[in-house]
Amino acid sequence: MPTQFDPPSGTRDFLAAEVEKREWAFGVLRSVFASYGFEPLQTPAFERIDVLLGKYGEEADKLVFKILRRGEHEASGEADLALRYDMTVPLARVAAAYGSQLPTPYKRYAMGSVWRADRPGKGRYREFVQCDIDTLGSTSLLADAEVLCAHHDALVSLGVTDFTILLNCRHVLLGLLEVFDVPEHLSEGVLISLDKLDKLSPIGVSDELIARGLPAETAMELVVTMTAPDATDRIRTVLKKCEVGICGLDEVDRVLGLVTAQIPAERIAFTPRMVRGLSYYTGPIWETEAAGVPGSLGSGGRYDHLIEQLGGPDVAATGTSIGIERALMSVPDDVGVRRGRIDVAVPVLTEGLAAQSFALASAARAAGLRASVYLGASGKLGRQLKWASDSGARLCLIFGNAEREAGTVTVRDMVSAEQTSVPIDGVGEYLADLAGTLHG
Amino acid sequence: MPTQFDPPSGTRDFLAAEVEKREWAFGVLRSVFASYGFEPLQTPAFERIDVLLGKYGEEADKLVFKILRRGEHEASGEADLALRYDMTVPLARVAAAYGSQLPTPYKRYAMGSVWRADRPGKGRYREFVQCDIDTLGSTSLLADAEVLCAHHDALVSLGVTDFTILLNCRHVLLGLLEVFDVPEHLSEGVLISLDKLDKLSPIGVSDELIARGLPAETAMELVVTMTAPDATDRIRTVLKKCEVGICGLDEVDRVLGLVTAQIPAERIAFTPRMVRGLSYYTGPIWETEAAGVPGSLGSGGRYDHLIEQLGGPDVAATGTSIGIERALMSVPDDVGVRRGRIDVAVPVLTEGLAAQSFALASAARAAGLRASVYLGASGKLGRQLKWASDSGARLCLIFGNAEREAGTVTVRDMVSAEQTSVPIDGVGEYLADLAGTLHG
Repeated sequence: MPTQFDPPSGTRDFLAAEVEKREWAFGVLRSVFASYGFEPLQTPAFERIDVLLGKYGEEADKLVFKILRRGEHEASGEADLALRYDMTVPLARVAAAYGSQLPTPYKRYAMGSVWRADRPGKGRYREFVQCDIDTLGSTSLLADAEVLCAHHDALVSLGVTDFTILLNCRHVLLGLLEVFDVPEHLSEGVLISLDKLDKLSPIGVSDELIARGLPAETAMELVVTMTAPDATDRIRTVLKKCEVGICGLDEVDRVLGLVTAQIPAERIAFTPRMVRGLSYYTGPIWETEAAGVPGSLGSGGRYDHLIEQLGGPDVAATGTSIGIERALMSVPDDVGVRRGRIDVAVPVLTEGLAAQSFALASAARAAGLRASVYLGASGKLGRQLKWASDSGARLCLIFGNAEREAGTVTVRDMVSAEQTSVPIDGVGEYLADLAGTLHG
Repeated sequence: MPTQFDPPSGTRDFLAAEVEKREWAFGVLRSVFASYGFEPLQTPAFERIDVLLGKYGEEADKLVFKILRRGEHEASGEADLALRYDMTVPLARVAAAYGSQLPTPYKRYAMGSVWRADRPGKGRYREFVQCDIDTLGSTSLLADAEVLCAHHDALVSLGVTDFTILLNCRHVLLGLLEVFDVPEHLSEGVLISLDKLDKLSPIGVSDELIARGLPAETAMELVVTMTAPDATDRIRTVLKKCEVGICGLDEVDRVLGLVTAQIPAERIAFTPRMVRGLSYYTGPIWETEAAGVPGSLGSGGRYDHLIEQLGGPDVAATGTSIGIERALMSVPDDVGVRRGRIDVAVPVLTEGLAAQSFALASAARAAGLRASVYLGASGKLGRQLKWASDSGARLCLIFGNAEREAGTVTVRDMVSAEQTSVPIDGVGEYLADLAGTLHG
């Protein structure tokens, strides 16, 4: 493809089969979310720039696409709008704007494009669909467990079954920091380093902890505990030494207990080394890993003060983001894609018969079939049959002068090349009978 | 709503009922378009700025939202990307990029947001959904007729039935110019003035024509012919005086003949005064009017050279834009909207029974119902029943200590307040039997 016709860097054109597959997936997710009573929310592609900037720190601000002021102000080079960076900032604005009109708790899903001026790379886009479900206004662990179940069902409905939800809790991490006497000013840094235990070697992480100022002995002990074959048991034991640790364990166990009816035990595991770098989480946190998929298939957790920090009201909140672009990679290419562009092709043999061909296509559509007349320049049946076949049509409805005289239509099966003569006023019924078979 | 929480000027937030109604409409349209063999295309929200600018003239360029360059170039105040203004420029780019991968003819639909920095007003937005169907690569009038039929079916499927498609043809207009001896340099201006015959008085239009330089007698004669009660017959007569007029009439009559099986005669009318201001049309043109709807419900025509002018290959093209935002105004508010947020509400009476409540919600979903557990703080059944009723639930599944001892679930009908005791292992089947009734 010559470069000047490429879509902009980091974005994609979706031709028919890709659109159909994606729309299929979005439809599946909508129906899973609705089955849990989550309701849809759609906000504009852009927000006023002050709504977006300064919400997630400087690094995130750099990724925001800014839109120039218009009219006489354009020359100033200033921006007053910006493309949405995620679905959470608009959610905070909506919660502030429509507060009392929204149900309590407000369970919403949002599925739509977000834009980030990130360096494009393999599987990394500047325009991608983000799919979030969140519950605002419930402090109950049941809300976390419900979001987790919906997250699980969403992946399973897309046909992704070989995955694990790594479950942890902010209080488990705080308990570990307390038990290992990590000074408070090092807490965030230590958690950021521990988060790398799935990528770096234990020694690498331990070195990083020491560099951050943690005593060597503590660093070693912490890393050994977290990476031992029986790490989970060891951690359960040490956490019982402090109150916040006991509370964290209790939260994890309650969530695990709540989801048992919906999530098979092998798909969810208490994973104390799973940290989630983001400091705004306040309760359970999770991340979904699948064999062969780089990165996560979704993640989330409880974030009780973030909505207020983002400019919304002070409400408890929990939610999850489904990695729909990644999940789509594991969905086979032909799922949700209809076979062929049309079911029924209608040649046009002479101009004088074109209106009848139109009427035949119309009858096929009325029978629930996708139908198109031939729009090309050739009057030759052979050429038109080739078009029919290229279009994936299963049937051809041929109406030439011979058929007109006989008052019939020739129905050609494009697979067997068998031809059946059907009286013209019986074509609708004939096609309606066939429609069930063709869709099967 | 305090202003700081408003969506940006000219844009809208869509809460649940609006999203559902809109998604319903989009789904209906997708299936109409597919029934004609049109296939979906999705392109990015933004394009490189050189792809967008200079395509429809200066006035249009002013309406383009421009995106600032990123990183170190941001300070320059220059834009390198811009939000798409319509679906046709991206179509031209795609036709150039994927030429041979696309079927011939390429029949595609595109449905998605476009952005215009227009002055917002009643029913006029800066972000709105545009819905286009186009056929590239066919010079046949059958392609125009097919697009018209799909346009017609789209509106009918949305429940809009009281509308008229005004049909005309560029050659009819050229014939009129010829018959009335309009000098070539005045042609476009005269057409622009004639286009106002549905808004201005005949005298007003005639004055405008004279001001443009047309001899007063010609101007009067032209306006009288076009506004006479028997205008169509008069025009048919005068058009027969020149070749291009005869050709135009023939095109109109052939299109009318082709669509008879699909479009009732009262919904389509040859309307010589309908001009469509845009100079890129080259064949049949149309515009759909509905009683009580300001502006048009859609319009289009043949534009054989536009794709090339927009940077694409030189292909014949015809297409229509469905005024989906306007059409949605005529769709009743509750169409496509599901009743209530959930079908089944599951109270949580004690924390120890929460996992069982989760399992009951899970069973309800497995039976095809939308279900949610209570996420609030109250342990009181009365309070939880109020939540169930506010959520629109039809059933409540109550599982307290009494039920646990009896091994049953109390199923409460939220309308009649009748309660039925169902053995706990029979709940799934019981709900599956009910699901059909509840959906009815």
